[in-house]
Amino acid sequence: MGFTPRNPDFEAVVRENYARHTFMHHIGAELGEVTPGHCALHLKPRPDLSQQNGFVHGGVIATLADVAGGLAAFSLFEAGADILTVEIKINYLAPAAGEEIIARGEVVKSGRTLTIVRSEVFAIKGGVETICAAGQGSLMTRKP
Amino acid sequence: MGFTPRNPDFEAVVRENYARHTFMHHIGAELGEVTPGHCALHLKPRPDLSQQNGFVHGGVIATLADVAGGLAAFSLFEAGADILTVEIKINYLAPAAGEEIIARGEVVKSGRTLTIVRSEVFAIKGGVETICAAGQGSLMTRKP
Amino acid sequence: MGFTPRNPDFEAVVRENYARHTFMHHIGAELGEVTPGHCALHLKPRPDLSQQNGFVHGGVIATLADVAGGLAAFSLFEAGADILTVEIKINYLAPAAGEEIIARGEVVKSGRTLTIVRSEVFAIKGGVETICAAGQGSLMTRKP
Amino acid sequence: MGFTPRNPDFEAVVRENYARHTFMHHIGAELGEVTPGHCALHLKPRPDLSQQNGFVHGGVIATLADVAGGLAAFSLFEAGADILTVEIKINYLAPAAGEEIIARGEVVKSGRTLTIVRSEVFAIKGGVETICAAGQGSLMTRKP
Repeated sequence: MGFTPRNPDFEAVVRENYARHTFMHHIGAELGEVTPGHCALHLKPRPDLSQQNGFVHGGVIATLADVAGGLAAFSLFEAGADILTVEIKINYLAPAAGEEIIARGEVVKSGRTLTIVRSEVFAIKGGVETICAAGQGSLMTRKP
Repeated sequence: MGFTPRNPDFEAVVRENYARHTFMHHIGAELGEVTPGHCALHLKPRPDLSQQNGFVHGGVIATLADVAGGLAAFSLFEAGADILTVEIKINYLAPAAGEEIIARGEVVKSGRTLTIVRSEVFAIKGGVETICAAGQGSLMTRKP
Repeated sequence: MGFTPRNPDFEAVVRENYARHTFMHHIGAELGEVTPGHCALHLKPRPDLSQQNGFVHGGVIATLADVAGGLAAFSLFEAGADILTVEIKINYLAPAAGEEIIARGEVVKSGRTLTIVRSEVFAIKGGVETICAAGQGSLMTRKP
Repeated sequence: MGFTPRNPDFEAVVRENYARHTFMHHIGAELGEVTPGHCALHLKPRPDLSQQNGFVHGGVIATLADVAGGLAAFSLFEAGADILTVEIKINYLAPAAGEEIIARGEVVKSGRTLTIVRSEVFAIKGGVETICAAGQGSLMTRKP
């Protein structure tokens, strides 16, 4: 879907917001492409991000799904507004392992108060991309 | 609710499982009380676990809710079974900050294949406990 | 949890709201007890409310969970406010059949804009109550 | 996405399953197109399907989202298998009103035990289609 940003500086604002998420840096996630209503995150699996069987932890996957969706929403907010996640639901589809994890968030509907997003998380292993999680959530605008 | 564990060694098995979640150690979470169908996790907020405004990151909160619920479910599994999270939904109720974060998971229904859990995450600030998230999810048994 | 209603006439307002849900009458659901932050609905299973195997349809169960939670939330709204469901997630725990279905909604947190609720749906068969669904959702206040 | 049905008679099996949902007939919903991993439902709004403000009731919308997603999943099941909804989450995006409501379900991943689906519900008013709900859920195969 094509969205028109309310703030022409949307990309700078999304990147500045992301820079303040110390937890994203702690897990080594990197902000990728940001376009109006869309956002991608990248992560290299590491041994200290694992669950009991050595796959990337569900909490890491949920974090990526939440932030990818959240920043997709945030890219459509007006200048000066802040954002908070109201809720998110994640379905885990496959164990996450490989060279890289990519999360892609996109806006389903951008409303005045609430924005609904979907996100998908993919694992790339041997160059093959497999979907490992799907999320759907809502975010709230905090007006400036 | 009172549950009868299928495995008398449930607590040791839960603690052994938790010990393998490298990500939980990475964020400094500690496993607290484990009783049949219940599990508590504790975390001290740290600067490197924050979102854009300095509160504990939603991804950390989601991780705690997921694992507290998951281990509550796992405490009722038969010996030798493994567990995977099917899905979880988290509602964020308040920003998380304070001396300590506590997540409590409990089983709603323990079925043959699927177990349904609820979890709640609380922030303790100045000794006052505030609920900051509520989760509901399902987990699957992988038979031995 | 004990809640203090913002509107002393909360019960009359909830009952008036419910009376306008033509769909609830269409399925034969009845509003039961209403207290601050809580609401119960009752339904007698009928052959025309079934899914493919003769159990009460999941859509009926979801409707009861949504409305029980919604009216629990609405009971704490200020006079003149309207309500809309933002989202709801339902886990189905057991097939629903028996003499009666009861849905109970309760508020987890009543905020200025959003209220978070949980609801549970029970089937009573031969006098025995079995939980058949658990829901968690959020509702929005439309200020007068 | 393109899916290969496990049962060449998938469409007949989906239509036979749907015919037994008495509740779907009670609300006047009709099964539309069924292709592998996809399913559409159609409903004409009626006065007896309303919520408190005269829009199509959220419970009707949830029912359509659940069944459209469920039958999309079921279209990929092997011959003789039965289906049950594990859980579904619905975000409501806009009030539903107009000449017709259309729900479209599609499979995200078809696994051995669990199938993950997404569904969208649209209202058509004056010929214009507006998305009014988005769902994401999981369904379980009951082997023959």
